[in-house]
Amino acid sequence: MLHKKGQYNIAVAGATGAVGRKILEILEERDFPVAKLKALASARSVGQSLKFKGNPVIVEELTEDSFEGVDIALFSAGAGVSRQFAPFAVKSNCIVIDNSSAFRMEPDIPLVVPEVNPDAVGENPGIIANPNCSTIQMVVALKPIHDKFRIKRVIVSTYQSVSGSGQKAINELRNQTRSLLDGEAIEPNVYPHQIAFNCIPHIDTFIDNGYTKEEMKMVNETQKILGDSSVMVSPTTVRVPVFYSHSESVNVETISPISAKEVKELLSGLDGLQVFDDPASNEYPLAIDCAGKDEVFVGRIRDDITCKNAINFWVVSDNLRKGAALNAVQIAEYLVSR
Amino acid sequence: MLHKKGQYNIAVAGATGAVGRKILEILEERDFPVAKLKALASARSVGQSLKFKGNPVIVEELTEDSFEGVDIALFSAGAGVSRQFAPFAVKSNCIVIDNSSAFRMEPDIPLVVPEVNPDAVGENPGIIANPNCSTIQMVVALKPIHDKFRIKRVIVSTYQSVSGSGQKAINELRNQTRSLLDGEAIEPNVYPHQIAFNCIPHIDTFIDNGYTKEEMKMVNETQKILGDSSVMVSPTTVRVPVFYSHSESVNVETISPISAKEVKELLSGLDGLQVFDDPASNEYPLAIDCAGKDEVFVGRIRDDITCKNAINFWVVSDNLRKGAALNAVQIAEYLVSR
Repeated sequence: MLHKKGQYNIAVAGATGAVGRKILEILEERDFPVAKLKALASARSVGQSLKFKGNPVIVEELTEDSFEGVDIALFSAGAGVSRQFAPFAVKSNCIVIDNSSAFRMEPDIPLVVPEVNPDAVGENPGIIANPNCSTIQMVVALKPIHDKFRIKRVIVSTYQSVSGSGQKAINELRNQTRSLLDGEAIEPNVYPHQIAFNCIPHIDTFIDNGYTKEEMKMVNETQKILGDSSVMVSPTTVRVPVFYSHSESVNVETISPISAKEVKELLSGLDGLQVFDDPASNEYPLAIDCAGKDEVFVGRIRDDITCKNAINFWVVSDNLRKGAALNAVQIAEYLVSR
Repeated sequence: MLHKKGQYNIAVAGATGAVGRKILEILEERDFPVAKLKALASARSVGQSLKFKGNPVIVEELTEDSFEGVDIALFSAGAGVSRQFAPFAVKSNCIVIDNSSAFRMEPDIPLVVPEVNPDAVGENPGIIANPNCSTIQMVVALKPIHDKFRIKRVIVSTYQSVSGSGQKAINELRNQTRSLLDGEAIEPNVYPHQIAFNCIPHIDTFIDNGYTKEEMKMVNETQKILGDSSVMVSPTTVRVPVFYSHSESVNVETISPISAKEVKELLSGLDGLQVFDDPASNEYPLAIDCAGKDEVFVGRIRDDITCKNAINFWVVSDNLRKGAALNAVQIAEYLVSR
């Protein structure tokens, strides 16, 4: 349990990664009540200097003893690191907000999107899991729809940016793109195929049913966050040559009759959500516009012409912010505010 | 009616455009029996020199009199040009294969994909319409599925390359990309928004129901080509920063029970179709690999985990070839071979 105080000691594990850096940025811009900030990373990053509120923060090595006196630790260093070190944080009475897939589907571990299921945090959390980026932005849009119309089935195709694979992938897209424009040969490294000027229908590894783990995250995490295993999701996840923000084409079939008009009204004015939907003025959410923003943006809301109880929409959000760092910080804010 | 002979006089209207050039290339590579080739375009392109079988072809102005003595005219210069000049071609006893949207939904005009509905050409065609690129590759995959399992509903999200908007769009993607990498400002021109490193859920103009014309083409043309107005299509069409080939994420619900295994077998070894589907080896169709190829490539075929009678797949094809120029030339081949 978090002891109420004015300021909290915070640790960021994986502080030098794309999401880790974004967590520092967001803690600062939202003026989170930080007493002391620890930037933790693997041995090879030790000594690097990051910035927080104008002051240098020197990266320390992540060890079993890193969490003494820390109130909240935000992990973003991959599932292996979380599995290895989160239990030591918990032993030190530190609450872990974990951005990896390590604990998300553990029955006793809450999987939380603050606008959707804050109550799942429970009285005495040890580890709180942050959902996968592609799931978070979708459930923010689905939750009000589910509450009002009961969702039966979701068919989603994603357009995911490379920043979801970290800084190396951002560099790979930039370097590949430049090489190809200059007529030079390229060699894929982060992705199994060329990502520049291409779409790769493959994110994370394949499992036996022909889906990828990324796709099954959208299935399983959506059910867990909505607290309803009857909500069915049929996903196709695709990497596209975009730096920041994931876009998703979503078809939602509901049990009650639904209409685009009702959904536009329903989603307007909700926390964390913005309806941006005026096709006549060429207004719909775009990856480049949503990058750096906090909200989940929804547009192209329209009746499904093939099914009375269904709609289509297009949802975009910054995968490093709401899809990762911001959602984690919002969980921390929920912990200190309640 | 086409009079049987050894070689035919061919005209290409819109010969200097991206699709027009591709038509010349494909007529040559498939050794189409061309007696005389006329390259037609608007006044401002007159005098340009194109190449056909090693010889220069000087572009002539497209006029009402261009089609005397021409057996087959392949139009690819936009709907306005087709509406204006195709009737004169027909008056000159020239069969028109029209790549524009001008006549596709006219009840008396056949809309043809040779692998799917060659018989629609009829005995005595005047104008034959070539379907839209995003429709062609989808129906090539859907037709065998519809024949065996009866399709009820298709939900499709597209990842369409810029070459579908012509040479100007290819240049725009290249120039925008380079400017952005160099940190320079860009000004969208062909598209309403930046296309480099972005996804734009807007192709062609919006209509009152909230869908774009491109989306409604996928609805209406699919029904017409399959000859079955009970096949429902719910589309979302999206422009992505890819030069060549369209990719599509397709969910198909059928009346009869269906399985990924059956569909893989069904689609294997068919004309014009290639199943490329071995996730364990990272094998699935990719835009960059399909560019320059003739076939429609299908992969990621898997059971829809949310519906017993449904599957998901990923279909990719070169939009300038099978999606436009190749399909038009194949219609011409059908005319001369039957």
